[in-house]
Amino acid sequence: MIMFKKVLVANRGEIAVQIIRNLRELGLRSVAVYSTADRDAYFTQIADEAVCIGGPLPADSYLNMKEIISTACLTGSDAIHPGYGFLSENAQFAQMCAECDLTFIGPASNVIEQMGDKASARAVMKAAGVPVIPGSSAVLSDAESAVAVATDLGYPVMLKATAGGGGKGMRVVANDDELRKCFDDVQREANLSFGADSVYMEKVITNAKHIEMQVMADSFGHVVYFPERDCSLQRHHQKLIEESPSSMVTAEEREQLGDLVIKACHAIDYRNTGTFEFLMDRDHHFYFMEMNTRLQVEHTVTEEVTGVNLIAAQILVAAGKPLPWTQDDITIRQYALECRINAENPRAGFLPSAGKITALVLPTGTLGVRIDTSLVGPATIAPYYDSMISKVIVSAMDRHRALRRMDRVLGELRVDGVATNQEFLGDLVHAPAFVNDDSTIDYVETDFLPRWLKEHEQI
Amino acid sequence: MIMFKKVLVANRGEIAVQIIRNLRELGLRSVAVYSTADRDAYFTQIADEAVCIGGPLPADSYLNMKEIISTACLTGSDAIHPGYGFLSENAQFAQMCAECDLTFIGPASNVIEQMGDKASARAVMKAAGVPVIPGSSAVLSDAESAVAVATDLGYPVMLKATAGGGGKGMRVVANDDELRKCFDDVQREANLSFGADSVYMEKVITNAKHIEMQVMADSFGHVVYFPERDCSLQRHHQKLIEESPSSMVTAEEREQLGDLVIKACHAIDYRNTGTFEFLMDRDHHFYFMEMNTRLQVEHTVTEEVTGVNLIAAQILVAAGKPLPWTQDDITIRQYALECRINAENPRAGFLPSAGKITALVLPTGTLGVRIDTSLVGPATIAPYYDSMISKVIVSAMDRHRALRRMDRVLGELRVDGVATNQEFLGDLVHAPAFVNDDSTIDYVETDFLPRWLKEHEQI
Repeated sequence: MIMFKKVLVANRGEIAVQIIRNLRELGLRSVAVYSTADRDAYFTQIADEAVCIGGPLPADSYLNMKEIISTACLTGSDAIHPGYGFLSENAQFAQMCAECDLTFIGPASNVIEQMGDKASARAVMKAAGVPVIPGSSAVLSDAESAVAVATDLGYPVMLKATAGGGGKGMRVVANDDELRKCFDDVQREANLSFGADSVYMEKVITNAKHIEMQVMADSFGHVVYFPERDCSLQRHHQKLIEESPSSMVTAEEREQLGDLVIKACHAIDYRNTGTFEFLMDRDHHFYFMEMNTRLQVEHTVTEEVTGVNLIAAQILVAAGKPLPWTQDDITIRQYALECRINAENPRAGFLPSAGKITALVLPTGTLGVRIDTSLVGPATIAPYYDSMISKVIVSAMDRHRALRRMDRVLGELRVDGVATNQEFLGDLVHAPAFVNDDSTIDYVETDFLPRWLKEHEQI
Repeated sequence: MIMFKKVLVANRGEIAVQIIRNLRELGLRSVAVYSTADRDAYFTQIADEAVCIGGPLPADSYLNMKEIISTACLTGSDAIHPGYGFLSENAQFAQMCAECDLTFIGPASNVIEQMGDKASARAVMKAAGVPVIPGSSAVLSDAESAVAVATDLGYPVMLKATAGGGGKGMRVVANDDELRKCFDDVQREANLSFGADSVYMEKVITNAKHIEMQVMADSFGHVVYFPERDCSLQRHHQKLIEESPSSMVTAEEREQLGDLVIKACHAIDYRNTGTFEFLMDRDHHFYFMEMNTRLQVEHTVTEEVTGVNLIAAQILVAAGKPLPWTQDDITIRQYALECRINAENPRAGFLPSAGKITALVLPTGTLGVRIDTSLVGPATIAPYYDSMISKVIVSAMDRHRALRRMDRVLGELRVDGVATNQEFLGDLVHAPAFVNDDSTIDYVETDFLPRWLKEHEQI
């Protein structure tokens, strides 16, 4: 297959900026699509072409599949990069691209579908020899069958919508009564949020860390894995800080986990990039949670750790080129850490904050600092989209030095005009549990945040 | 020796920013000194303390030794980091620091003096077994003795002020007549510029590349060298683009050169960082030109290539700590390239351009891009100082990819309000001689620049 000439970027914000820059460096033309709210956004300025595709609401623009596909055709694009979020894990959209002779830069539609359904992903992984969280083997029909499974697994358990993701459609229950009470609610929520009411159950793994492993696969059967990322610091299942490699994972465990995810990729004939998310308990048992069949926000951490360019590789393998590396090329050259800067107010329930940015200081430059953002000078944060406005990634020879660097950078960063979680993250980076790498996925919500709110009320 | 608590930064602009950030990451307090022209400069904002030490003219502030020393004493500083330029190679200043019980972050005063005198540096290096450019063995007393030496060496030759540096106090002559005519002028210029009229002579090495090698030494006799940098693209002996490693230097040559400079460091009992500058001719013969006994602008390239933090290491070894690495830790993890963005007008003889920056877009973020600058949002370029306003450093797995990255970044960079050399550098990065790594130290002035000016006149 010959290389693409022009690629449409079906996304906005910082990830659109990153994709357009990578296209430029590969010598390919880029087409940005944007909503009326993003008329002046930086990504529209650096793309070779920019087309307004609708109003500010996602459904009218960044989720408007027909409009995006027809813009791709009209501009003579060969391929579409979906970024993360929006249409990136939409099997129907990937299918529409294929039907219109556009390359979807991601895995095949049927694989997105298979992995998007949490129950089927679980079954497929189990069959491929990947350990999964103990749970129901099928969709739960009613509260009583759920109680039977929970008795078997032992409480606490989690009810999950099979179509869920990103922290939505999940509920932890501690006993029979709670389970009976909420079962119908979770079904109803699942139906409302995802258009499907199927729900399954998993045992809750206590004191677990979130460890994930990204892969990249080409169409010649080559798959490589990348050093694991620890994304245990979360709030409402949204990642706050991601790091790699994990100081808790040994080289041997890394290799075993890598072999496992490569085997799983072969089992589902996986293409392009994806990430296997695991829980790791205190005894270093790994349990598959789900697979993200797309680029993730935190791929940047892996780029800094390994020095490889993940978006460029996505584009190359989608164009039918072989992987630019072998497994031996993927080495840990340094440690890296990312903080997600969100326009939100931690003191007011993390309420998103929109408005005009009146002053912006991005402390870029100096060794080991990378700030990926769509903010260039005074800009406006629209209320329609994700509140993440910037990713601060630092790298250093070791974790200790990287934490000091992050502390320094967060101290220097300045975003005036909207509320941000900068101070909250700055304090989190100092928390002893994090400094000692002892924090689990519950840490922020059950321990750090309540204390933080209390301390900040008193001031 | 115990670690410093507070360090005064005797510099301004981007290098002051870098030093202050490194101090912060090391947990040390920083004191900025500034001239009245730099009252609102970014480096004064991020330092722990900032003290105005005089008027805008360098002699009144950044070269005002007494004022700087007394500020260091009054603020309780333990050490002074001189950055590059200004007092960084001033032996008297280093001596004054020692006398006032302040650690000068750099080599000893007598070594600065020894290497600062070009003729004595040459003699010392020759004695240490480092090949030097064939030339006069002593200072030339008059035109006729100069003619005798030149006849011996063969024209063209270069007259050099022994106290010169940074491209000043040099003159290339092609024959006896020219030499007789200009000898007195060069002596007079040397006297005016450097306060000493001693002049020596070197053979001109034609078609040479500028290859330099940085070292770092502690007070326990440990010295490491870093992969060579190629800084052949120069104008008026001022570097424009620096890269590392050189595609023209073999691993064996690198190791030989490294062994040589380590030997030379032991010969002069060198401490802290310094750089040996060589000419490399077509046959890969290396000739020592001079040693910079300080941090250089282009140390950033080496930081990106190796991942080590040079300013932090300078501070640590100055505090009496051992080198944080052995030679084996210094590996080439990637290729890096730097462009110096100057506020100057290439179409008007590179006339410095001062004024208010009305818009600034620094395309930071994305893998392999580092922009070191003192410009943060709207700022004013004062006419009193160096015209360099930003360093764009890109890194990638190979030179080819790094050049494409630099091309992309220079295309995205935007500095409105002053003239810059951005377009000139963008074209230089595309020049076939540079792309093929075939450019020598004469290339810009004798080949690229005349053509570039012609093409840009016609528009």
